[in-house]
Amino acid sequence: MSKDGLDYLLDPASVAVVGASEDLGKFGGRAFHNLIDGGYEGRIVPINRARDSLRGIEVFPTIADAPGDIDVAVLAVPSQFVDGVVGECAAAGVKACVLISSNFAEAGPEGLGRQNALVETARAAGMRLLGPNCLGLAVPSRGLALSPTVVFTLGGGLTTGNIALVSQSGALMTQMYAAALDTGAGFSACVSVGNQADLELVDVFEHYIDDPESRVITCYVEGLKTPARFARALARAREAGKPVLITKAGRSASGARAVTSHTASIAGEFAAFKAAAAHYGAVLFDEAEDMIRAADVISRCAPARGTRYAVISGSGGAAVLATDKLAATEFGSAVLTDESVAMLADSYAEPHRRLPIDLGASQKSYGPDRSALAAGVVANDPNVDCIIMAMTPQPFIGETVEAFVSAGKAAGKPVLVSAQAGLVRTEMAPALARHDYPSLPGIEAAIRCLRTFRGLAATVPGAAAVETVTIPDGLPVAGALSEIEAKTLLRAAGVVTTGDIFAASRDDAIGAANKLGYPVVLKAQSPTLVHKSDSGGVKVGLADDNAVGAAWDDITASLASNGFDDMAGCVVAEMATGVAEMIVGARYDPAFGPLIVIGFGGVLVEVVEDVQVALAPIAPDYALTMIKRLKLWSLLDGARGRPLADVAAVAEAASRVSHLAASLGERLTVLDVNPLIVGAAGDGAKAVDGRATLAEGK
Amino acid sequence: MSKDGLDYLLDPASVAVVGASEDLGKFGGRAFHNLIDGGYEGRIVPINRARDSLRGIEVFPTIADAPGDIDVAVLAVPSQFVDGVVGECAAAGVKACVLISSNFAEAGPEGLGRQNALVETARAAGMRLLGPNCLGLAVPSRGLALSPTVVFTLGGGLTTGNIALVSQSGALMTQMYAAALDTGAGFSACVSVGNQADLELVDVFEHYIDDPESRVITCYVEGLKTPARFARALARAREAGKPVLITKAGRSASGARAVTSHTASIAGEFAAFKAAAAHYGAVLFDEAEDMIRAADVISRCAPARGTRYAVISGSGGAAVLATDKLAATEFGSAVLTDESVAMLADSYAEPHRRLPIDLGASQKSYGPDRSALAAGVVANDPNVDCIIMAMTPQPFIGETVEAFVSAGKAAGKPVLVSAQAGLVRTEMAPALARHDYPSLPGIEAAIRCLRTFRGLAATVPGAAAVETVTIPDGLPVAGALSEIEAKTLLRAAGVVTTGDIFAASRDDAIGAANKLGYPVVLKAQSPTLVHKSDSGGVKVGLADDNAVGAAWDDITASLASNGFDDMAGCVVAEMATGVAEMIVGARYDPAFGPLIVIGFGGVLVEVVEDVQVALAPIAPDYALTMIKRLKLWSLLDGARGRPLADVAAVAEAASRVSHLAASLGERLTVLDVNPLIVGAAGDGAKAVDGRATLAEGK
Repeated sequence: MSKDGLDYLLDPASVAVVGASEDLGKFGGRAFHNLIDGGYEGRIVPINRARDSLRGIEVFPTIADAPGDIDVAVLAVPSQFVDGVVGECAAAGVKACVLISSNFAEAGPEGLGRQNALVETARAAGMRLLGPNCLGLAVPSRGLALSPTVVFTLGGGLTTGNIALVSQSGALMTQMYAAALDTGAGFSACVSVGNQADLELVDVFEHYIDDPESRVITCYVEGLKTPARFARALARAREAGKPVLITKAGRSASGARAVTSHTASIAGEFAAFKAAAAHYGAVLFDEAEDMIRAADVISRCAPARGTRYAVISGSGGAAVLATDKLAATEFGSAVLTDESVAMLADSYAEPHRRLPIDLGASQKSYGPDRSALAAGVVANDPNVDCIIMAMTPQPFIGETVEAFVSAGKAAGKPVLVSAQAGLVRTEMAPALARHDYPSLPGIEAAIRCLRTFRGLAATVPGAAAVETVTIPDGLPVAGALSEIEAKTLLRAAGVVTTGDIFAASRDDAIGAANKLGYPVVLKAQSPTLVHKSDSGGVKVGLADDNAVGAAWDDITASLASNGFDDMAGCVVAEMATGVAEMIVGARYDPAFGPLIVIGFGGVLVEVVEDVQVALAPIAPDYALTMIKRLKLWSLLDGARGRPLADVAAVAEAASRVSHLAASLGERLTVLDVNPLIVGAAGDGAKAVDGRATLAEGK
Repeated sequence: MSKDGLDYLLDPASVAVVGASEDLGKFGGRAFHNLIDGGYEGRIVPINRARDSLRGIEVFPTIADAPGDIDVAVLAVPSQFVDGVVGECAAAGVKACVLISSNFAEAGPEGLGRQNALVETARAAGMRLLGPNCLGLAVPSRGLALSPTVVFTLGGGLTTGNIALVSQSGALMTQMYAAALDTGAGFSACVSVGNQADLELVDVFEHYIDDPESRVITCYVEGLKTPARFARALARAREAGKPVLITKAGRSASGARAVTSHTASIAGEFAAFKAAAAHYGAVLFDEAEDMIRAADVISRCAPARGTRYAVISGSGGAAVLATDKLAATEFGSAVLTDESVAMLADSYAEPHRRLPIDLGASQKSYGPDRSALAAGVVANDPNVDCIIMAMTPQPFIGETVEAFVSAGKAAGKPVLVSAQAGLVRTEMAPALARHDYPSLPGIEAAIRCLRTFRGLAATVPGAAAVETVTIPDGLPVAGALSEIEAKTLLRAAGVVTTGDIFAASRDDAIGAANKLGYPVVLKAQSPTLVHKSDSGGVKVGLADDNAVGAAWDDITASLASNGFDDMAGCVVAEMATGVAEMIVGARYDPAFGPLIVIGFGGVLVEVVEDVQVALAPIAPDYALTMIKRLKLWSLLDGARGRPLADVAAVAEAASRVSHLAASLGERLTVLDVNPLIVGAAGDGAKAVDGRATLAEGK
């Protein structure tokens, strides 16, 4: 495979710094010094019209004047000079440019125009661009820092490791790098992509998949330029066995909270991203530094076979606080075997032979030997998947950490060594460095590592062939479907619904009720009425003709008094009863395509926000996995003696809806089944009401 | 006021170190060196039979040989020698001893015996004891470290400040101290109380209330020896205007999860502690280090008048991640006034003139002047209560922090300066030190500070006079009350209940139903049946005699088939309907006395764990505050067009139950009103079912 622009960027034989100077107060000065101080061994070519030599290296006035091939040029010049220099680089056959300068697309339309012109110039010459408005990159194993940030060289040189980082934010890249210094995490490469005028985040991501030095891929993402390509890259990383960790900004951006659909309001932009990540087994983070620390654990520790943790501390207080925190999570403590407890009997008094272990409570003289014994017992206990050390100031910090790390390595289990105080971290550092082992700044970070282990091992939906659903004749080509139309569409997809008949008049309603059989429900139909029951538009449990007639009158009056003057009539529907009320929905996401949503119906969906979202289609098995991930899952599973709900029927319905969504693609803008009434186990689930919006086919 | 033992401990004129040596590997050696290295200016008296002099100070073989008064003796000798040395100290008139040695009460009954003997010896001589099994104390302003831990002197000397700390764990005290070094927090005193053989946590706490150098009191508590005294101390601290921050271990200890009562299972030991803290306006923490950092902010920053935050960063990425995290909390971002936005117009392009502000997005040259301008505008904006800085590696870190801290101080608003990376903290440190200002290690810590501001400003219930409720005649003196008995008790307390009649036979049930008026409910009564509805023991909506008869037969059959053979009959009750189902309960807590519990009924109480607990009694106003703090409060407040519930009636009922609990004290072991059916606003709330257990009066 021939070298592409990114290969040159990450492993150049020669680098020109345009705007190089001795002034560390300037971007160009810092970029030039970083290149030297980082230990880069390739050819360095400083470009500056006003200098002959800098730090003993010959300076050339322009790129054109510099002899030999130049692989990469770093441009740290004022914005207005960038286009000229990019032109010179293109003419000189430079393979790739790093554009640090800002005031391009991010500054408005005029800047975007100048940025587009740069890309045109570069493409014409077969030259690639990184940036503009970025902070460059670093490849520690090559001693390469193509960046004006002092962080890469301030902390005592570049730290080599196996974490590959690509970041949409330059400043945040430097922040992650700086935080990594505190716990000894190292990188195979760090790249900030800035405005992504040419090279975009996914280009770098794809490069990492094939890079043997990159064991874990980490990304900071604000918005994706090409989400479908990103999704394909996630799939390829998964196949290649490379864990992917992502920090996504903009989770709280509520977007257009469309009140016309539960699904649209629940499954917004971030939910779609989350679904895509889950689809490919990538793990999401709230905090960029947490992501790097978890990546470090994944890259340097043995993988955890489960999440049964063993808490170890030199302080009883720290042990119990860590245990309190962990007890509030979804994870459970390991329970040592009787054999392990017996082996600890000689060293520790009764309550201290069980987890969490307070090493300070040794009944013999406290020291490294006792800790080594405890380390061996705990690490080799078959019930322990992962050791969590809550380190506090105590004697023998280094020896204690070393004992557990060694025992963990020998047993093939991860040891999450956590310490809040810098003073303790400093004391642990030499022992950890000897073992090339990571540390964490607190129990919260350890919990996020447990979540990462679990996330990477989680079930993914797997590929499912789309089963084609055809839109039944008689439905409108586009626009909002009526309840009856939506349920017709659902039935075409194989979803079980209650029977219903539209009635335009009071007499028609009574006739329809007799046809369906009592009891029935009456539901007002109006193009502007969304939450029917909030406006007195629904009457349930109507037992006879009189009840239907009275209900019709009530509904008419109630809608009128609530200001709805466009009531078209009522749907008369079979009355469904069950043990739970769910919602199933679908939405076409412009970035990731059709999504399926499963959640609790009624007030719970609004108040508890308990929903699961996935890329459609999904098989019933995976739908069941999603249902079991709902916070209130126990409500379906016999909590407090409640009947078991027919979750298999819910899973089947969700799978059917997901195939409908996948089959219709962009044509199905949004669809809600709300509620899906779920019977007791074996009794099925029925769509009682539905709404949908179709878009014209392309 | 004469000096007591604790005064001597915290400000001794002379200190003897028993077991002093030059060996830093030993407790005695470290304690001796700490005293010298900490800068203590009082008289130091090393005691060691085998030395004449240590670090140029004369050594005496025993306490008895040492001339002059000795205020405090630090005992760092093996456990078996402690009783002898304590005897010698008592004989020599020492005012207080610090007992570092362990293997006393914490090691079992034999150790407890030896510990009790020490206390007897000390009390007879009027000498106080700290410990045993503790790590002593430090008073930085006196250069005093009576402790073998190296932490007090390792970090470059003792750090003076206004945080007062008392800890039940010695190791955790050293951990909090070490973590404080990272962010520059300082202490008025740190005391670890160990086994609390003589001096207990609350003694130290009370001392801090009166200590002018202690601005904030922080405690690490495992279990309280004298909870009532602790509660009184909390009340006194509140009156004295001293904020109290507490880290309580053992939150996850589920205790005896009694299935016989919702209240007992919901309002366990930790809930009682939490209620007591809320009662006196103390703020609870999960993590000890967070507590110290929040205390530092409280002690050194201006108090926040609200929680509308302004996020500032030098990185757009860090700003948006911080905003995402904050958006997931109960707090809301400030919105700058139009005037402020206009003042930023010259420096920042359109999207960057609003919060969060990315200082890096300055459209003029980026530098300290621009930051100072932004700092002034944000700090003086009337909509901003608190500034949160998410600092990343960037140019002018010190100047930027200084600009905002100065502006915040001038405007009387707190600035929460957060930085994850040590490298950034190091760069900020000089500027923060100049302003005697704290920093935080991340946005999570800033969020906890916002919670502390809110917690300290939160409504507390206030003192309420107990309204006496007398147990009605005819109720059993002790034991479990039947539903009818429990409701009789509730009515005596002024709680509205549904009408009910006990029926021992099918015919009686029909007669009772006719007396109450249809529709009615039938509820099985059996001493062993707790969750009636789970065993088919409840039939609702019975409309006529036939329905009641059929229900009786069903219930009898259902209970029999579920293995209950002790059905005494059924309660026939008036049918209550409403818009919400709540639970109100009471429990006598051995530590804090009568508690009142308010939560959602039905499945929500079990699954969502949404309850509020307070010390009884409470006024209806405060009950309403508690109701509004429920997570699902919006269900009562018209969420999704639901009717407004009669929360005033719920508050009144809860207040009545709280007076019942306060009035009966220990006699009311536990009481559940479950459910309390709540009508729409104005329609009241009725206790539909009740359970209670009485204990014999003392």
